[in-house]
Amino acid sequence: MTAQAPISGEIERSGGTWRFAANQPLRLDSGATLAPLEVAYETYGKLNAGKTNAVLVCHALTLDQHVASTHPTTGKPGWWNRAVGPGLPLDPERYFIVCANVVGGCMGTTGPASTDPATGAPYGLGFPVITIGDMVRAQAMLVEALGIETLFAVVGGSMGGMQVLQWAADYPEKLFSAVCIAAAPRHSAQNIAFHEVGRQAIMADPNWCGGAYLAAGLRPDKGLAVARMAAHITYLSESALQRKFGRELQRDGLSWGFDADFQVESYLRHQGASFVDRFDANSYLYITRAMDYFDLAANHGGILTEAFLKARTVRFCILSFSSDWLYPTSESRDVVRALNAAGCRASFAEIVTDKGHDAFLLDEPQLDQTLRGFMNAQAQARGLG
Amino acid sequence: MTAQAPISGEIERSGGTWRFAANQPLRLDSGATLAPLEVAYETYGKLNAGKTNAVLVCHALTLDQHVASTHPTTGKPGWWNRAVGPGLPLDPERYFIVCANVVGGCMGTTGPASTDPATGAPYGLGFPVITIGDMVRAQAMLVEALGIETLFAVVGGSMGGMQVLQWAADYPEKLFSAVCIAAAPRHSAQNIAFHEVGRQAIMADPNWCGGAYLAAGLRPDKGLAVARMAAHITYLSESALQRKFGRELQRDGLSWGFDADFQVESYLRHQGASFVDRFDANSYLYITRAMDYFDLAANHGGILTEAFLKARTVRFCILSFSSDWLYPTSESRDVVRALNAAGCRASFAEIVTDKGHDAFLLDEPQLDQTLRGFMNAQAQARGLG
Repeated sequence: MTAQAPISGEIERSGGTWRFAANQPLRLDSGATLAPLEVAYETYGKLNAGKTNAVLVCHALTLDQHVASTHPTTGKPGWWNRAVGPGLPLDPERYFIVCANVVGGCMGTTGPASTDPATGAPYGLGFPVITIGDMVRAQAMLVEALGIETLFAVVGGSMGGMQVLQWAADYPEKLFSAVCIAAAPRHSAQNIAFHEVGRQAIMADPNWCGGAYLAAGLRPDKGLAVARMAAHITYLSESALQRKFGRELQRDGLSWGFDADFQVESYLRHQGASFVDRFDANSYLYITRAMDYFDLAANHGGILTEAFLKARTVRFCILSFSSDWLYPTSESRDVVRALNAAGCRASFAEIVTDKGHDAFLLDEPQLDQTLRGFMNAQAQARGLG
Repeated sequence: MTAQAPISGEIERSGGTWRFAANQPLRLDSGATLAPLEVAYETYGKLNAGKTNAVLVCHALTLDQHVASTHPTTGKPGWWNRAVGPGLPLDPERYFIVCANVVGGCMGTTGPASTDPATGAPYGLGFPVITIGDMVRAQAMLVEALGIETLFAVVGGSMGGMQVLQWAADYPEKLFSAVCIAAAPRHSAQNIAFHEVGRQAIMADPNWCGGAYLAAGLRPDKGLAVARMAAHITYLSESALQRKFGRELQRDGLSWGFDADFQVESYLRHQGASFVDRFDANSYLYITRAMDYFDLAANHGGILTEAFLKARTVRFCILSFSSDWLYPTSESRDVVRALNAAGCRASFAEIVTDKGHDAFLLDEPQLDQTLRGFMNAQAQARGLG
């Protein structure tokens, strides 16, 4: 079966989430194929008769399809309850909102913890290395299977924003608008360095077992927790950490030992400990690798503008946060410059905040307002009520 | 024996370095005492007849007394060969230069790998938690034992700079001048957070054995390497990493696996792997803890100015680097403001460079020039030839 064949597949509600089992393999940028391909996703609202109101939300590294619904493991509310919901910028009364777990993930979409049909055991390191392009190709298969020809919008922050840019490069004809928040067109040396620390922390854990920990009944929780702690620092600005924690102590006085004396230590340890309950260590390896490999210009002769030449009809909104040092505003400006040079329509705003990269998930009224304004204007242009 | 008794001790050349065995215990800020206390140090040049030309160089977290002499383990040249040597700003022809391994270190000064006299085994976690103040108190004992009443200068970068500030607060009457490079008067929440990641990486390594790895004949090398990798990123600026490595690959093309594809990954892995050959994991825990506990104002009613009120005769030089995000210029400015408010003489320069925190160890001509200018002016004021 070739990729040209119409994409369809079994769609069912299972295990608290929607599952799409594709009728064909996923072609990967590495040259390999992945089969079977299952994509776990959530939807909110209804697809209208003209199928013009579909919004695809792309999630970040450690998030999932539960954008506005309770997480089945943690019981926590959806990760973007601030943006997706009645009366919010992405309103299910108006839009049919889809969010799919990425390929390589661990919340139902095929990933390294899935069963390798060749062995009957979990893939582990037998899972093929994937890219942001592969994630988007799987989403495009789901979108086609859902009968959606054009997405009203594709929206995402951080790695979600990278997927948005990839959508614009690979499927511009399927997009009406695109919102890229706190992302970058390539992973910088510092970005790669932080990810490599996390991967080394996981692989240093003897319970990782060369990636075969599931078969061994073990979990590299300590390594994964250290990886999360290191990454988490990069999600916050120095000033946010200082404001939130400063040098505040957990108890009266110092412990004169290696307990968590400072609140920031206790906070980080908690971030690490709670992360391992909801995430798979190998998924962390594969998804960080996909982000490191991301370099949108590289596949277009090294010229970012070339990636967007076919996206002139797409209405772009590029947003950055002033205190984001992981994907600083300069990276978003590079995207905007390339969009402008390609003749695309691009709105750009740098939102002034001290909350750092994670601002896209936090109480940031200026983000809500900007997102709402852009979505409403596009809805009007698209004739959505 | 009380601390008021004259400090002396056995001084001998042993194992390629000088050793001072104190005749009394080291009183610690925790309330504990450390005995016996040995301090390993190096000297360059000769103490003049008036004993007015002694310069104490204070080292950073993972450095040691081999400021301008070959490291006995790695065979590498001294870590500050750029600044200490004939014709250089700290010239042994003019000055008697002393550099001592800090308490808690692993290059000969008493630390967690030393033998605990109570057990006959290495201290491990039985070693008392130490502070920057304790490091300085041990140095002051050595300086007294060497018969030096007043140091012509105390000089240091990073944690060495913290020791310089502590010297000015605790022993202002023993200082003629003080040079503090790329440091801060307190550890910020982000500084603590990065250190905590490193500590957790070490303690997550099963070979750490609750700190008793030496007795078990093991080494938590993997954890220590991860700690070093995470820390190393903070020593370089984002732009230095980008300039040095960008997205350059190790080989032609991607590996589509988890080998070090990018040069920055390979570089970081090398930093981790070579570090474990020369450093002790428990020393890393204790010294990072000392840095996290550092808050010079806290012991002076929360007012940094109070720390310097007795240092009005000391001539200060405070230097920062524009791209240092670990101890940014704003921290040095806080020191300068406090010095000014205390009525101290303070020169300040922010050196514009993209090399980040590690600039104090690198080819940075403006640093050499500034240091030389300050040292020469002080030498003239002190009547040194």
